Amino acid sequence: MGQLSEQLRALLDANTVGVLATVAPDGTPRQSLVYFTRDGERLLISTLADRLKARDAGRTGWASLCVMGHQPPFPSATFSGSAEILTEDIGASTANIAQRISGSDEPPEPMSDETLAAAGRVILAIGIDRVTAASHLSAVADEPGTEA
Amino acid sequence: MGQLSEQLRALLDANTVGVLATVAPDGTPRQSLVYFTRDGERLLISTLADRLKARDAGRTGWASLCVMGHQPPFPSATFSGSAEILTEDIGASTANIAQRISGSDEPPEPMSDETLAAAGRVILAIGIDRVTAASHLSAVADEPGTEA
Repeated sequence: MGQLSEQLRALLDANTVGVLATVAPDGTPRQSLVYFTRDGERLLISTLADRLKARDAGRTGWASLCVMGHQPPFPSATFSGSAEILTEDIGASTANIAQRISGSDEPPEPMSDETLAAAGRVILAIGIDRVTAASHLSAVADEPGTEA
Repeated sequence: MGQLSEQLRALLDANTVGVLATVAPDGTPRQSLVYFTRDGERLLISTLADRLKARDAGRTGWASLCVMGHQPPFPSATFSGSAEILTEDIGASTANIAQRISGSDEPPEPMSDETLAAAGRVILAIGIDRVTAASHLSAVADEPGTEA
């Protein structure tokens, strides 16, 4: 899609977790809570290559993430599109997500792709092709974010 | 499934919103944030009969709801199972969900099924057949809920 609106960017940048949906082999959605970061118009999630969510995304090439604020009226939107599993040049993104998990001021020192591969770590990347179910986005600016 | 554990019940009762997933006609998951209430081992969502989520659930007979706490470490779990659209005896459940949305001390006076039907309101009911992706549930008890 085109550029994300300012409100959608604010929602993504002010909130650290979302609910990921992938398609399980039996065709039903598989949902789990994940930390993510935004890289332009992509959403990046750090996970393990052998996790079912990563295998779903690699097999089907599709995923969605529903992101919400954490106070009433719970502003939210669902971002969906093509998904891929990245294993190269993922040190900085992985460190950025680790920073969002820990709430630290600075990201940790990025690890090399080799170190991350040895740990089984990959990045699940979602290209934002569609935004649906957007709700109460005007409340994003009023809500204290979980990070600056 | 059998009875929900105390931690799972606490997660469901302390939190008012979750991310619903249904299966869209093209086979991809459709996610949106919804308010819900727990009725024993079922999860009830008030929606409109013509909403895509209601049509998905009625067509496929399946839905899942990922419920989370709203502070780190964001305790969460995904509840999935058979779904159906209810139109009879839904006044009390609809009032209960309205109370959770408003945060009032008391639910509003229940409306009759006829009044709700005229407004297009239905209940999407999910039978909890499986619980997956349960995470950080021990944090539920430590977290101030969004309602008592």
